[in-house]
Amino acid sequence: MALDSVRTPFGAVDRVVGGAAVYAAVAASLLAPPRVVGVVGGDFPQSALDLLAARGADLTGVERIPDGKSFYWSGVYDYEMSGRETLATDLNVFAQFRPTLPTAYRASRYCFLANIQPQVQLAVLDQLDETCFVLCDTMNLWIETEPDALAEVLARADLVLLNDAEIRQLADTPNLAVAARRVLDMGPQYVVIKKGEYGSTLVSAGEYFSIPSYPLPDVVDPTGAGDSFAGGMIGLLARHDDCSTRELRRAIAFGTVTASACVQGFSLDGLRRLDTAELQRRYDALRDMVHFEAMDWEAFT
Amino acid sequence: MALDSVRTPFGAVDRVVGGAAVYAAVAASLLAPPRVVGVVGGDFPQSALDLLAARGADLTGVERIPDGKSFYWSGVYDYEMSGRETLATDLNVFAQFRPTLPTAYRASRYCFLANIQPQVQLAVLDQLDETCFVLCDTMNLWIETEPDALAEVLARADLVLLNDAEIRQLADTPNLAVAARRVLDMGPQYVVIKKGEYGSTLVSAGEYFSIPSYPLPDVVDPTGAGDSFAGGMIGLLARHDDCSTRELRRAIAFGTVTASACVQGFSLDGLRRLDTAELQRRYDALRDMVHFEAMDWEAFT
Repeated sequence: MALDSVRTPFGAVDRVVGGAAVYAAVAASLLAPPRVVGVVGGDFPQSALDLLAARGADLTGVERIPDGKSFYWSGVYDYEMSGRETLATDLNVFAQFRPTLPTAYRASRYCFLANIQPQVQLAVLDQLDETCFVLCDTMNLWIETEPDALAEVLARADLVLLNDAEIRQLADTPNLAVAARRVLDMGPQYVVIKKGEYGSTLVSAGEYFSIPSYPLPDVVDPTGAGDSFAGGMIGLLARHDDCSTRELRRAIAFGTVTASACVQGFSLDGLRRLDTAELQRRYDALRDMVHFEAMDWEAFT
Repeated sequence: MALDSVRTPFGAVDRVVGGAAVYAAVAASLLAPPRVVGVVGGDFPQSALDLLAARGADLTGVERIPDGKSFYWSGVYDYEMSGRETLATDLNVFAQFRPTLPTAYRASRYCFLANIQPQVQLAVLDQLDETCFVLCDTMNLWIETEPDALAEVLARADLVLLNDAEIRQLADTPNLAVAARRVLDMGPQYVVIKKGEYGSTLVSAGEYFSIPSYPLPDVVDPTGAGDSFAGGMIGLLARHDDCSTRELRRAIAFGTVTASACVQGFSLDGLRRLDTAELQRRYDALRDMVHFEAMDWEAFT
């Protein structure tokens, strides 16, 4: 839960509401009521918490430290918006954050561990029922600085989300097919490779699923896209209480659609404009986008 | 039709058979007998021409200049094999090349204009029946140095193939969805964006189709992938004499599969190992890779 200052070729915003938990919760809330864990300072807008509550989110796991400042991130995106430079990362109230899950949260069936120190992710896992299906995210910083703790997270997670640069770094190979196999060997049953505008790929021992992103002429800010993707995914899994591979494929399509809405606005503007009708329209359009017919091989040869 | 010296992280080859016409013809020959137009020098291996003939290619449009040298290209690929540096381009016999189509070629129903000066592409178009369905390729050099001739090619082609960097340059925008619309406004009915390992996208006024590349652990040399892709596409179109959007979607899947075989070896080694059984296996696997189920929206809401 953060305040972000972001500049892209299409505009700039200063200290707007952001953060992985916020993006993921707003995205998921179209599908299932999320339980949010996080910490904010006195500077975090109450209106953002009210928005989450209005969308059905349980906020008993959100701590407010009135005399603290919220996590702050500032970054600037390049012309193609595929790369970004971080200008500032101020942990503020996150520096001392040790999440305690409210009792009702502990029986959650699905959990998204957003990017944070792997030790904090482990502390959350320790408080969850073992039957929980766990999606986890991470970043290059922890791959470099906390490999042991991260390895423990990977061994305990069911599905790990990595962007293409991260998985190449973690698996030490440029070939994404090889990299995915190596990460599966680290423990998780599933790996999802997030490739930004080039889509995403789900890999497990017996499965390979890959779809493009939802094409849009009006992408203005990629911030939060990966967390909105995870939120859309887990929202569908939780809604149907189904983590079969069949449902995971559909969950990735939901993640693709929620991420597409996210990038159409700064902060939560894009996600807030996404309603169920538009979600359904984009899901069906995405299915059509990847469809090609079977061949009649008998007639072919 | 060229001799190439190529270095990748997986090996190096010196003056091996290559060139867009060769890659495209070998790829297409699995599906339909191609008619080849090109020029070679005395140094071009007869065995490569024999291979093409054995696969059913018509070589009456191939000129050999015994005391000339074949077109020569030399390049080196980076660690991720997504970028490459050209070390040498010697036009040699191509410097004076003015293609004359054998009479039998002029009624061809499908034509792939591989990357060459747009003026040469126009000279081929002038010799073809107007009903021919024309795929054309180009490169950054002609976008920069021959914009007027290239504009004429685009206005007369039915489908233009561009990689992501080329279409961004041609359309002067980083957004691929916007770029595709702008290129359609230049004349062609279809645009295909080649995104290398990230797959390909077909765009027309009313269609958007996008699939990933075929994932492989053993990619060794990307040279010729784009031309093998075009060869696989046009091979299917010609085989069924069908250029409907429905068939174009399948043709892109065939192109994806033929390109995947190409990159598994240097020169023609990968393409030569691809047989009909493996082509069919990969096509069916690719269909499964992009499949996700429809939602029952009645039950969903």
